[in-house]
Amino acid sequence: MLTFELFKDNGTSGEASDCARLGKITTAHGTIETPIFMPVGTVGSVKGVSKEDLDHCGAQIILGNTYHLYLRPGCEVIEPMGGLHKFISWDKPMLTDSGGFQFFSLAKLAKFTDEGVKFQSHIDGSRHFFSPEKAVDIQMILGSDIMMSLDWCMGHPATEKQTMDALNMTTAWAKRGHDHWEEKGRVNNLFGIVQGGMYKELRSLSVEQITAIDFPGFAIGGLSVGEPTEVMYEMADHTLPLMPRNKPRYIMGVGTPENLVTLSGMGCDMFDCVMPSRNARNGKLFTRFGDINIPNAKYRLDDRPIDDTCGCYTCQNYTRAYLRHLYKSRELLSYRLNTIHNLYYYLDLMAEIRDAIRADRFLEFKRQFFSDRQQEADHA
Amino acid sequence: MLTFELFKDNGTSGEASDCARLGKITTAHGTIETPIFMPVGTVGSVKGVSKEDLDHCGAQIILGNTYHLYLRPGCEVIEPMGGLHKFISWDKPMLTDSGGFQFFSLAKLAKFTDEGVKFQSHIDGSRHFFSPEKAVDIQMILGSDIMMSLDWCMGHPATEKQTMDALNMTTAWAKRGHDHWEEKGRVNNLFGIVQGGMYKELRSLSVEQITAIDFPGFAIGGLSVGEPTEVMYEMADHTLPLMPRNKPRYIMGVGTPENLVTLSGMGCDMFDCVMPSRNARNGKLFTRFGDINIPNAKYRLDDRPIDDTCGCYTCQNYTRAYLRHLYKSRELLSYRLNTIHNLYYYLDLMAEIRDAIRADRFLEFKRQFFSDRQQEADHA
Repeated sequence: MLTFELFKDNGTSGEASDCARLGKITTAHGTIETPIFMPVGTVGSVKGVSKEDLDHCGAQIILGNTYHLYLRPGCEVIEPMGGLHKFISWDKPMLTDSGGFQFFSLAKLAKFTDEGVKFQSHIDGSRHFFSPEKAVDIQMILGSDIMMSLDWCMGHPATEKQTMDALNMTTAWAKRGHDHWEEKGRVNNLFGIVQGGMYKELRSLSVEQITAIDFPGFAIGGLSVGEPTEVMYEMADHTLPLMPRNKPRYIMGVGTPENLVTLSGMGCDMFDCVMPSRNARNGKLFTRFGDINIPNAKYRLDDRPIDDTCGCYTCQNYTRAYLRHLYKSRELLSYRLNTIHNLYYYLDLMAEIRDAIRADRFLEFKRQFFSDRQQEADHA
Repeated sequence: MLTFELFKDNGTSGEASDCARLGKITTAHGTIETPIFMPVGTVGSVKGVSKEDLDHCGAQIILGNTYHLYLRPGCEVIEPMGGLHKFISWDKPMLTDSGGFQFFSLAKLAKFTDEGVKFQSHIDGSRHFFSPEKAVDIQMILGSDIMMSLDWCMGHPATEKQTMDALNMTTAWAKRGHDHWEEKGRVNNLFGIVQGGMYKELRSLSVEQITAIDFPGFAIGGLSVGEPTEVMYEMADHTLPLMPRNKPRYIMGVGTPENLVTLSGMGCDMFDCVMPSRNARNGKLFTRFGDINIPNAKYRLDDRPIDDTCGCYTCQNYTRAYLRHLYKSRELLSYRLNTIHNLYYYLDLMAEIRDAIRADRFLEFKRQFFSDRQQEADHA
């Protein structure tokens, strides 16, 4: 069972923009400083990088997608290979989602019933079924340190009725998944997921129902599904203060660097998003002073690193001109160097957030962060 | 100017299968032990790996393709960026070819005249022209430690007349390139290339003409262009003894592990080939005991490394089952891990060849090598 220590929790200030928390989660595979960002390792590999690259970037925990791993290579490979940690040769903490988001975003013909979700593989159209119990069983085979309850993630926009139905189903499934996990001896950790769409009263209702179940941590799901950023912030700011203070709070699938800073300030402890790695593969690189699009012709003869304040391997070794050339030539090294930079940027940003909270200067940090990010990337 | 020291040269034995040589080439960017294999970094990156990966694999020199680098990113980028070494952040020796092979294999509508080669880019169809002098100029801008003369590489089959024409043109161009290089102050090193197709008498003639020019090293070109392996060996075995003993002998674009062992035994000092990196990207992995095709279903639950006698990063960290999964899922990490293994295999093989020559047991090594390679890869 994980432990969660809170060293700071500014939520008592009552000031919405300074509810940041500083904590530490301890799992069987080691500790995680919070607030933390979790790189996404969809099918057993964070796309483009190795475990040593992840260490260099400062990754303390990675995320695996249960839906993807269940389909390929499947439990029938991962189980005899000794679980996901051993299979992919990663010995730090790992979180797996439940598949709920992929049923919403990727699977074909997902049908939600009281019993669970019927769906077809996006790879070969084969038919499958997930129940809340099966989602726990699969994640136990994967051996993830933090498992997620099966949930029904609603898109945006959705009617109040649709959102309510998904919320009720999510609660019923959370109870069943939790009971199943109890019966299995509470192996590893299972988190509950709050839904409720873009309706504050439904978010309140979902928090009440889900946090009534004895999970070691809680997530906010169903955000970053197409709604405007302001609505996402409004929902998070409404929901986070209703969640237990003594347990980790994880906001799923979020987000931009600005999102991470803002939501850390609202008291969120854990984040995941494909954005840094996916953007890297598309040539979009984050810097302290704004984002740069490396294929742009203006970088053709630019002998500066991506960000001259960055300590990452890519910035320490390569120029924008070379990175542009690699990207334009579709060289494999391009994807790796770009991904290292973006992940380093994200994880370094989280370290800066933690440092600021620790030093009681989070609001000052946040102001500087937003001011810096509005500059041109090629300011120098 | 490079120096070439020869520590062993078994050619005096008169035994065709034991003419192996052990040497050392010293260039401005460091030394190269021979016989050596040069990984191919087509457009400024050995596909799939980083410079640290190349160090791990034991790479002492890499090859760049002048044709590709000229087209993309072009001298107008590489020159202001300080040359190829600085641009790609590689500080060990580098060899560049002259474009001759790409005019044969890749460029559109290449037209050979006394003056040089007119061709169209395979990327965008744009029109370009290389003369022997221009090939030297471009390579001087790239700053390669070893530059190659512009040659006319003939395919197989070719008539004696066609081969003779290409041979004569190659000799004329070699003289012009050499004169131009002399005028420029013999910067770096320029090698001559022997042609002559699959005709022994033309090979003899070409060696005579090319080695009459004062190059610091010589290559055999126009092999591995579609001819049977036995013909390639016959041509090499005929040509190599005719080449100067006190200068490096480089056989271009060759080959398989078996080729490297056999041709080292004939007295060849330098090799390059895309085979280890290209095969890696296609899931074909070399081992001491034969090659394995990693997508094969029989590796699905195989928890052994690719080759349990291999010291490479991939074999030290990952199972065949995981590598199969990565390959089947088209994960970027697959290409890197496979390429590290294959390059390590090739470069380790060259180190074993050198050790065997040094210890006067090359023929014994060669027998064991061929015996091992005929086993099944999954022998254990």
